[in-house]
Amino acid sequence: MEKIDHIGIAVKDLEQASKLYEMLLGVKPYKTEQVISEHVTTHFFKVGESKIELLNALNTDSTISKFIDKKGEGIHHIAFAVADIYAEMQRLKDLGFVLLNEEPKQGADNKLICFVHPKTTTGVLIELCQEIVIP
Amino acid sequence: MEKIDHIGIAVKDLEQASKLYEMLLGVKPYKTEQVISEHVTTHFFKVGESKIELLNALNTDSTISKFIDKKGEGIHHIAFAVADIYAEMQRLKDLGFVLLNEEPKQGADNKLICFVHPKTTTGVLIELCQEIVIP
Repeated sequence: MEKIDHIGIAVKDLEQASKLYEMLLGVKPYKTEQVISEHVTTHFFKVGESKIELLNALNTDSTISKFIDKKGEGIHHIAFAVADIYAEMQRLKDLGFVLLNEEPKQGADNKLICFVHPKTTTGVLIELCQEIVIP
Repeated sequence: MEKIDHIGIAVKDLEQASKLYEMLLGVKPYKTEQVISEHVTTHFFKVGESKIELLNALNTDSTISKFIDKKGEGIHHIAFAVADIYAEMQRLKDLGFVLLNEEPKQGADNKLICFVHPKTTTGVLIELCQEIVIP
């Protein structure tokens, strides 16, 4: 793992939460993005080499909506940047970690992503992510 | 906030969790430390400019023990590095954030720390921390 790419935080009211994190972090969000496949709208803030990603459900099909119903607002996942997501997925599988998707999928912020099941990582939902580079 | 200093993760079995994060992150813990005042033992792993801090309760007085009883293992807090913790505490107080300690206290990893109440930060326990420099 190269660095913490971002921390994903599930929020109920995106505009309100975004103002709050703008005050807390002292910077404005640099990007907002809808990820239709994941049923979320996101706001991103830069902090050092990492980012804070606010996650807001677009509808009740969203895992963010289910997460908030069950646990309330709060930290949803940690994402680590990796150089080669295919190699890293294979390495973790060989070590006994359980992956939530067999193939990398398209995530927010121009990334290929894969989630690791929290049951194999002390309750922490881990995301691997690799920037998509178009040659 | 300068960067994500570390993410604190509450774990039940420190040795087992430490082996697991060593496999996941591909690095050994660089430090273990007991913080008697907080009733915890910690293991630290470097990831880029940030760290993962595993937190294990020394006894049932520990907030980590209470956290695990209530919510299970998982992410306990996010810590942001600040240049001047006194100024940052005052700035956040003026903005309406609720601080959990009025004066900075001594934390793990040679830091002055202060926590921000999760009720003012969308359910996320935020720590501010500043390295103690002895001139």
